[in-house]
Amino acid sequence: MDDTKGLAIAFEEAQASYDEGGIPIGAALISADGKLLGRGHNMRVQLGSAIHHGETSALFNSGRLPAKAYKGSTMYTTLSPCDMCTGACLLYGISRVVIGENQNFLGGEAYLKARGVEVVVVGDEGCKALMDRFIAEKPELWNEDIGVEERVYSKEGKTAA
Amino acid sequence: MDDTKGLAIAFEEAQASYDEGGIPIGAALISADGKLLGRGHNMRVQLGSAIHHGETSALFNSGRLPAKAYKGSTMYTTLSPCDMCTGACLLYGISRVVIGENQNFLGGEAYLKARGVEVVVVGDEGCKALMDRFIAEKPELWNEDIGVEERVYSKEGKTAA
Repeated sequence: MDDTKGLAIAFEEAQASYDEGGIPIGAALISADGKLLGRGHNMRVQLGSAIHHGETSALFNSGRLPAKAYKGSTMYTTLSPCDMCTGACLLYGISRVVIGENQNFLGGEAYLKARGVEVVVVGDEGCKALMDRFIAEKPELWNEDIGVEERVYSKEGKTAA
Repeated sequence: MDDTKGLAIAFEEAQASYDEGGIPIGAALISADGKLLGRGHNMRVQLGSAIHHGETSALFNSGRLPAKAYKGSTMYTTLSPCDMCTGACLLYGISRVVIGENQNFLGGEAYLKARGVEVVVVGDEGCKALMDRFIAEKPELWNEDIGVEERVYSKEGKTAA
């Protein structure tokens, strides 16, 4: 599967979450041979869960797998992964992480690279526009999801500091 | 709540998971003012989940909380936290991580410290004995949970490599 298709699945998940009133971050886990292992989106609102982010939901929906299933796999995510999702990718030895955008949130990209994971930042305008919109609409919910008390938002809905 | 009590709750969770046929790792999240926010155990077997480890289950069972609820909190866990659980503690700004034992598995302790989290390793014999027993009984399940293909186990059931 090429990166465009993988990221498109992640974006579909993000959009689905937005449409459900949730946090619009989605992910898809693709095996080394191009098979979709699992896809999912943030479920903080839908499940009342602090651990179902986009990437962890994709891992959850992939079910129980032996370590070899993750070898050479790629995690597609619409937004730069937080510390938890960074760690989840490291735990399972995921080889590549393809990120839609990192302007609204910059997660563990440097740490992933330091641990030997290939990181690709696409800079996708669709992913960014959806997060821009969500953060402008529900800043408190976004703060809760990334464990911060308060952030300063510019008029455009982006983190200003 | 003192550390002995917090770890005792984590151990109760680990034992409960063992008794359910699951992976015996438990955790408890205690707020700065000593309130139990949540407790839980690994649910890989029980839920078929790749993301419900001890610490993440305690976070899941704590429900949705604002960032300030985690300030000054302590995560008690029977075993040194894996990369995912390390990241989950970092995401929510948990202040202390108290670990039952790190002989059967050494997780992200150094990274937690580097990021400013206080780490206490108790060296609890009960936690260690339960994991020793589990790893000796179900090494393949344990490998799956920590994302490794194969490990060499000594006769005592400990990682020999």
